Amino acid sequence: MKYLVTGGYGFVGSHLVERLVEDGHEVTVIDNLSNGQLDNLTAVKKQITTYISNVEHLQRQYFSTTFDGIFHLATAPRSSSLRDPMRDIETNCKGMIAVLELAKEHKAKVVFTSNSGIYGSVSNNSAINESAINNPTTPYDADKLVSEYYCKIYHDIYGISSTIVRFATVYGERQVVNEKLNWRPLVATFIKNVLNDEEVIINGDGEQTRDLIYVNDAIQGVIKAMHSKIDTADIFLISTNAETSVNEVLHQVENITGVKPRIKHTEPLKGDIRRMRYDYSKAKDRLGFAPQFSVSEGIKRIIASQTKKKHDKYV
Amino acid sequence: MKYLVTGGYGFVGSHLVERLVEDGHEVTVIDNLSNGQLDNLTAVKKQITTYISNVEHLQRQYFSTTFDGIFHLATAPRSSSLRDPMRDIETNCKGMIAVLELAKEHKAKVVFTSNSGIYGSVSNNSAINESAINNPTTPYDADKLVSEYYCKIYHDIYGISSTIVRFATVYGERQVVNEKLNWRPLVATFIKNVLNDEEVIINGDGEQTRDLIYVNDAIQGVIKAMHSKIDTADIFLISTNAETSVNEVLHQVENITGVKPRIKHTEPLKGDIRRMRYDYSKAKDRLGFAPQFSVSEGIKRIIASQTKKKHDKYV
Repeated sequence: MKYLVTGGYGFVGSHLVERLVEDGHEVTVIDNLSNGQLDNLTAVKKQITTYISNVEHLQRQYFSTTFDGIFHLATAPRSSSLRDPMRDIETNCKGMIAVLELAKEHKAKVVFTSNSGIYGSVSNNSAINESAINNPTTPYDADKLVSEYYCKIYHDIYGISSTIVRFATVYGERQVVNEKLNWRPLVATFIKNVLNDEEVIINGDGEQTRDLIYVNDAIQGVIKAMHSKIDTADIFLISTNAETSVNEVLHQVENITGVKPRIKHTEPLKGDIRRMRYDYSKAKDRLGFAPQFSVSEGIKRIIASQTKKKHDKYV
Repeated sequence: MKYLVTGGYGFVGSHLVERLVEDGHEVTVIDNLSNGQLDNLTAVKKQITTYISNVEHLQRQYFSTTFDGIFHLATAPRSSSLRDPMRDIETNCKGMIAVLELAKEHKAKVVFTSNSGIYGSVSNNSAINESAINNPTTPYDADKLVSEYYCKIYHDIYGISSTIVRFATVYGERQVVNEKLNWRPLVATFIKNVLNDEEVIINGDGEQTRDLIYVNDAIQGVIKAMHSKIDTADIFLISTNAETSVNEVLHQVENITGVKPRIKHTEPLKGDIRRMRYDYSKAKDRLGFAPQFSVSEGIKRIIASQTKKKHDKYV
């Protein structure tokens, strides 16, 4: 099949592109490299076609091929959306329209990676599922939500096939800290801090939780969404149904590395979500999705790959 | 008080500005004149300050005064949002952020005029109220919805006061047909067609209904929203709780003018809403809002004013 991956040089995107190439598909990538890195696709760069561009300018691109499917992963990060809500609208809202307009021309199916932050906090002990009330707490969440509506509208009016996945908090190899975008993903930041003997900043008390999903599991979800017959912009949570606190993540990093972190607590972040746990039953039932990796397995794999990289550098 | 009115040269906006000036307020208007007209405020032009600009560029404006309140009426029309969803995002999404950023600097209260089209069709005989499920059917509806979320987010994070009104279908004097924007408001179009002996186009069977609210009633709603203590981005329907079909509107115009229209039926519009009726109990209870004008009274007033204008022209 012929696929377009937006944000394909990013953290999740690059894992997806490698998998698609491995599975024998013809892959085109569009990325503006705001957070993605060319190095991320070194292994497959000869097998893919690359466009360096903002996703919202997609319609102006000339594609010599017709796509069967578009994986729409390009995004402006949640962390900078309060500081730059206009940029968030450009990338997230306009980007989604650009993707849907291209899908309309190509009759391509769209898989859109939305975000579970749309729900806001878990208010009790039960996990959130897809029928929970939306409670966006940042412009990013609101822009992801409106993008989901665009998918639904383009389906209802133009018949564009799409499936929406709402990711829990994805972590894994190649996820980077991007200070410029104010993007400090939990697991990546803690591993970086600990391995480099940097002070670890914990916003608030550290008892806020995340539903952490390993990148390979997230990829499993989007690929199954693309292959599914579901084409009505239906929404699926891709998650693990488990909560891990910020303190627990740091504890695991400490255990695996054997390094005692230096910790500094700061004020809680504005708009931060206190608890996250998401039920993936719907994705299990209808997409055949099931996560394979525990948080400690995931963290071990990341640290092993970084240690290997360091080792490779010195041999 | 010092008020900013975005879209103040438009149909609803100009009625609002006149009322505010009449009530002794200091009024500044920003409008890009895409659908507004300078003529609309001829009567009060010496008493107001005008900026001709897109609302999304608001932050770049220099205002010599600090506003107590911002009435945010500027909008790209629903009718062109499928044809130009990117423009809709610019005006409606970015425009809302620009207004909220200004409100943040000025500590001003915001009244945002959203849209009841967000709900989609009435599925049974009961009127829709504010707790109905959102079902946006065009990019415009989705962009109005996300703008409401921005208000909520700016309240929760920065403490910006706002009240949201979801208008039913507003009609009245100065509402114009704008072919360039694909904007053909029902009442205005039918009156224009009949008075100019033009063919009347009815999309579909004409039995689709609207909850038609006269512009003076709509203005009553937004002013009461501004004066209210409600500041948490709470949502109020400003409506009449009555349904009038497209055919019935034409029938009324025929009765009042005595002119028999020439009718042409076309295909139903994509994304068109079949039935609209909205319950304004919440606005009645909490804002003291109640509509004063029936559809036939409203149509009579418009036709009387147009006949007067024609008469004035020839004397």
